[in-house]
Amino acid sequence: MNVAVVGGSGYVGGELLRLLLHHPDVELAQVTSVHWAGKPIARAHPNLRGASSLRFVSPADLRPAEALFVATPHGEAMARMPEWLASSGFVIDLTADHRLHDAAAYPRYYRADHPHPELLTQAVPGLPEFYRNELRAARLIAVPGCIATASILALRPLVGLTGVPDRPVVIDAKSGSSASGRESGPAGAHAERSGVMRAYAPAGHRHTAEIEQETGLTVALSAHAVEAVRGVLATCHVFLSRPVEEKELWRTYRAAYGSEPFVRIVHDSDGLYREPEPKILAGSNYCDVGFAVDAHAQRLVAIAALDNLGKGAAGNAVQCFNVRAGRPETTALDFPGLHPI
Amino acid sequence: MNVAVVGGSGYVGGELLRLLLHHPDVELAQVTSVHWAGKPIARAHPNLRGASSLRFVSPADLRPAEALFVATPHGEAMARMPEWLASSGFVIDLTADHRLHDAAAYPRYYRADHPHPELLTQAVPGLPEFYRNELRAARLIAVPGCIATASILALRPLVGLTGVPDRPVVIDAKSGSSASGRESGPAGAHAERSGVMRAYAPAGHRHTAEIEQETGLTVALSAHAVEAVRGVLATCHVFLSRPVEEKELWRTYRAAYGSEPFVRIVHDSDGLYREPEPKILAGSNYCDVGFAVDAHAQRLVAIAALDNLGKGAAGNAVQCFNVRAGRPETTALDFPGLHPI
Amino acid sequence: MNVAVVGGSGYVGGELLRLLLHHPDVELAQVTSVHWAGKPIARAHPNLRGASSLRFVSPADLRPAEALFVATPHGEAMARMPEWLASSGFVIDLTADHRLHDAAAYPRYYRADHPHPELLTQAVPGLPEFYRNELRAARLIAVPGCIATASILALRPLVGLTGVPDRPVVIDAKSGSSASGRESGPAGAHAERSGVMRAYAPAGHRHTAEIEQETGLTVALSAHAVEAVRGVLATCHVFLSRPVEEKELWRTYRAAYGSEPFVRIVHDSDGLYREPEPKILAGSNYCDVGFAVDAHAQRLVAIAALDNLGKGAAGNAVQCFNVRAGRPETTALDFPGLHPI
Amino acid sequence: MNVAVVGGSGYVGGELLRLLLHHPDVELAQVTSVHWAGKPIARAHPNLRGASSLRFVSPADLRPAEALFVATPHGEAMARMPEWLASSGFVIDLTADHRLHDAAAYPRYYRADHPHPELLTQAVPGLPEFYRNELRAARLIAVPGCIATASILALRPLVGLTGVPDRPVVIDAKSGSSASGRESGPAGAHAERSGVMRAYAPAGHRHTAEIEQETGLTVALSAHAVEAVRGVLATCHVFLSRPVEEKELWRTYRAAYGSEPFVRIVHDSDGLYREPEPKILAGSNYCDVGFAVDAHAQRLVAIAALDNLGKGAAGNAVQCFNVRAGRPETTALDFPGLHPI
Repeated sequence: MNVAVVGGSGYVGGELLRLLLHHPDVELAQVTSVHWAGKPIARAHPNLRGASSLRFVSPADLRPAEALFVATPHGEAMARMPEWLASSGFVIDLTADHRLHDAAAYPRYYRADHPHPELLTQAVPGLPEFYRNELRAARLIAVPGCIATASILALRPLVGLTGVPDRPVVIDAKSGSSASGRESGPAGAHAERSGVMRAYAPAGHRHTAEIEQETGLTVALSAHAVEAVRGVLATCHVFLSRPVEEKELWRTYRAAYGSEPFVRIVHDSDGLYREPEPKILAGSNYCDVGFAVDAHAQRLVAIAALDNLGKGAAGNAVQCFNVRAGRPETTALDFPGLHPI
Repeated sequence: MNVAVVGGSGYVGGELLRLLLHHPDVELAQVTSVHWAGKPIARAHPNLRGASSLRFVSPADLRPAEALFVATPHGEAMARMPEWLASSGFVIDLTADHRLHDAAAYPRYYRADHPHPELLTQAVPGLPEFYRNELRAARLIAVPGCIATASILALRPLVGLTGVPDRPVVIDAKSGSSASGRESGPAGAHAERSGVMRAYAPAGHRHTAEIEQETGLTVALSAHAVEAVRGVLATCHVFLSRPVEEKELWRTYRAAYGSEPFVRIVHDSDGLYREPEPKILAGSNYCDVGFAVDAHAQRLVAIAALDNLGKGAAGNAVQCFNVRAGRPETTALDFPGLHPI
Repeated sequence: MNVAVVGGSGYVGGELLRLLLHHPDVELAQVTSVHWAGKPIARAHPNLRGASSLRFVSPADLRPAEALFVATPHGEAMARMPEWLASSGFVIDLTADHRLHDAAAYPRYYRADHPHPELLTQAVPGLPEFYRNELRAARLIAVPGCIATASILALRPLVGLTGVPDRPVVIDAKSGSSASGRESGPAGAHAERSGVMRAYAPAGHRHTAEIEQETGLTVALSAHAVEAVRGVLATCHVFLSRPVEEKELWRTYRAAYGSEPFVRIVHDSDGLYREPEPKILAGSNYCDVGFAVDAHAQRLVAIAALDNLGKGAAGNAVQCFNVRAGRPETTALDFPGLHPI
Repeated sequence: MNVAVVGGSGYVGGELLRLLLHHPDVELAQVTSVHWAGKPIARAHPNLRGASSLRFVSPADLRPAEALFVATPHGEAMARMPEWLASSGFVIDLTADHRLHDAAAYPRYYRADHPHPELLTQAVPGLPEFYRNELRAARLIAVPGCIATASILALRPLVGLTGVPDRPVVIDAKSGSSASGRESGPAGAHAERSGVMRAYAPAGHRHTAEIEQETGLTVALSAHAVEAVRGVLATCHVFLSRPVEEKELWRTYRAAYGSEPFVRIVHDSDGLYREPEPKILAGSNYCDVGFAVDAHAQRLVAIAALDNLGKGAAGNAVQCFNVRAGRPETTALDFPGLHPI
């Protein structure tokens, strides 16, 4: 299948290229970049040295493709999407530009009106676990944000439990430095970013809207930057109106994810990795989901870990692509992650 | 003043020695260690190379001292405390062994009965901000845990606010690797610990009891290990029964800490360090406290940062010592921390 | 092909399992571990969760296999090798026990006499770039150490140049924490290992012997531990008796490695990764080789980077396996590494 | 003494301010910054929050001072120095602009002609260990670069040994990210800088000239960026024309540094920090010097560690200030460093 990537020089773009170059059903035809046009893709993504002779092309040179992946900075895809939809079989948008169904949320969370609100209702969320059927025929797929994907996968199975939720769910999210993208500015300099536990968005984080949209819960999200390059951990604190037991949670999560290829339920009684840990997921498409019961505070803690560039972005996008293209869902996504790393 | 340290080879012990060796009113007479007895203290604490010719002595050789600091592993100080109290002017206990007033909490949180429950009610919490007067005459001072100190300093001023709290406070704590001590085992090996966001205690953390004791709140604490050597960040999520404004929080915290030498209120509108950040507090005795208001979820986020070995242990102990000894409270504690680090 | 791994619970063992489980021509029959016998392999290697239902078996339960990989601690394979050779089609030894041809070097570098010196001359070095033909029929393959592999790949093509070497070659090696293995002891604890530039072996490093054996050069090696989990960088300083130009070095390295699948020549004029950098090689089987000319000191700097668990151990072992088994050399080794990481 | 700092917003400037604010003989009158003029100094240096009410002033507002510290970017101090010398009692220049005595070296190493070559011969190197007397009366003090200071302190005592040196000395330097300064660009972003062992200057590093100037040796320097925020380690490989023993080296270094307050000779037979390690020197003014003998290659390895912002810049500058001002040399420099960190 003939595939193009718009905005392929960022970190999400690089991970997309790594996956697509190894995808047996993909012919990667074009990758655009404003700043790197004309240069070999390995200049931006040194891990791809020798893997491809492709060079970035200017966005103006983009040709029609059967499938188009969009990984531009947030806000740039809004205006161009109608044109891209016209020239592509389908579009997988990794930006935030089509994630929210409610156009009114854009000025609130992204400080800009959405120029094409009609597309928001057409966009299918890039969550194969919940929208597999819809994805098979989607023309526009909106891949959720990394913190949103982790949180939604941790929380959504709980929604049906009696006693959940009768009040806001607290989500404490931690993310690695690649989540800020390649242009991370002064706050992203190593000497400033190393070893931080920075509460960069104690309230008002944009992913709040996505999580609420997909779970129906009221969300109180605080986001922290910690020292790691890749990875998101979402620790979700859910208060119950009745006691719950671990057995019930095992059952609930198994019912939701027992046959999912990329969601693992992790809650071990020994070992060094008893709960989900993003460290060992770098490069993989897994989202590990775990939990703990706090009888003292009548609280359930749901925990999800993923690679923000993997299941939190490019990996998930390729999984959506596989669903949409009728390929086996795990195609090109079999890398299990490294340990130690 | 003649001072001895019991259990001086660990990380908390080392930080204590660093501070006491520079303290103008302290004559550091003895430092005990079971394993390092006979060796120069700099062999365990290489930053003290050349700073002192002291050698560790066996605990059996401990002589009476005017002031005794205890930094043994948790559980060891319980049995010996009566003897130490008898031979010392006063004791500053940095272990968990005398933090909880309620003896019944020890089997629950520490899996052991307390052999001398009568001491628990005599022990004064090592929190100068709240027990300054009691500390001046204390015979036994119990320095709180690092996560507890941060959480208590963040939360206690809020307790008087109307509308706080009518339900459990969620505390998401992150800590650096030195908090596991020198004997951190396989989970503390660099290859396993590097880059983690490990939810090592999603529920049931021991500091829960201390925070509840000092704030009167119900606490839902989840603790994470993140990549940093020093530092604790406590993000406290408080749900309000009425809206609150930043102005009111500024006023509340200023009333509580306006004249405290080691609590700074941090909530800047620009710069790279707008909220409390433990990274820049390594080696200092500061606890920085900040906050954010989340009108969407009617939530208040209180944030506290400190160095787990500083204000979270040894620095705080020296501050308590200064209060108890009638010295200026900032003596030997003027190191401001480093940036970058 | 029926394959077994002896000593599969360490970091090298884990990487081997990751590669072998994805190898289309391998049936992984058994993995031994003294300490983890009976436990699922994912308990030791959490990245393999869900990838296999294999459990570790006791070494006593090892059955004959067509190919046997040995990843025990150094020193343990010496005594057992005759028995393993008798029961296996061929053995790939990742320990140091059969790397040196000269039995006299073992007491010197490893403080133990070699019990089976006759095997040392039979063992073929696991360097496909230089021993491809010998490997095809080898019964015992001795995979070199990680610093040795990097240094040999950087230096061996230079040996034929006139003017090289008329004096010792200085090699400054840096390695990540996984190179110390899972049992890294107190020096490997995160709080001690984080941020170090530790000169742990300024002289006398064991890999000196391997590098001298394979290059014929006199080697002055100093090894440092730096903060990274995976990776080795070998910076080799070669003094010339005549000036040399970059063009000649390009030509020399291209002649040596132009058709090698896993050695890339890296010496870019721009970009962030102009010289070999192990960071982007984690999980890959590449060794990147680069160079610089220092006309001022009439010095040539040859630089090699690899993943100590990849091309420095398990990846290289699988490449040797592919050669020995007559499979395409890149089988199961196509992972390109991640960026950023 | 009335003191001003020109260029006080960078990392070296921040460390200077930290030290000067605690200096009992210094009245810090002004700190200039082009970009931060008008803002509190703690906005740039968050560790100084609450320590001072000073605000940056524009360079145009600089008033005469008894002592002037210069920490501008390299190249900016060249043109202004005559004016600063005219209005100041003395100037301590932390930039590279007056380090080299030979004006011809500037176009070669810094790609610019020096506008005031007459000042180069007047400038006294900021190395109290070797220029203490000259510093007492200096009008212009040129503090060496961080790699240069480490290398000079490691090598200069060896120069008098017979058999040293008859050929270039190889120096392999490793430095932390703060050495790139606050404006470290894309290569300094955390996601790119984390975990690197980057050979950023395998040949041609600027500090080569300083080291050769102060030691008389021919220097073959390769510089690497490793993961740490602070710290420089210089591993110096010296080839001897005769064997040397450890005893002789102890004697040599003790003769040179036995009474130096900030140079420690470190070469322990056990412990985790046997050789100099910059990790434990962050914030201190120590340069630790160690060594190893490699009889195999008839090589001596001299190793020096320091904090690039401490003894490698601001700490050393304050030590020079103390010498020049006739104060005890250790004034304001008694911080011993942290462990662990």
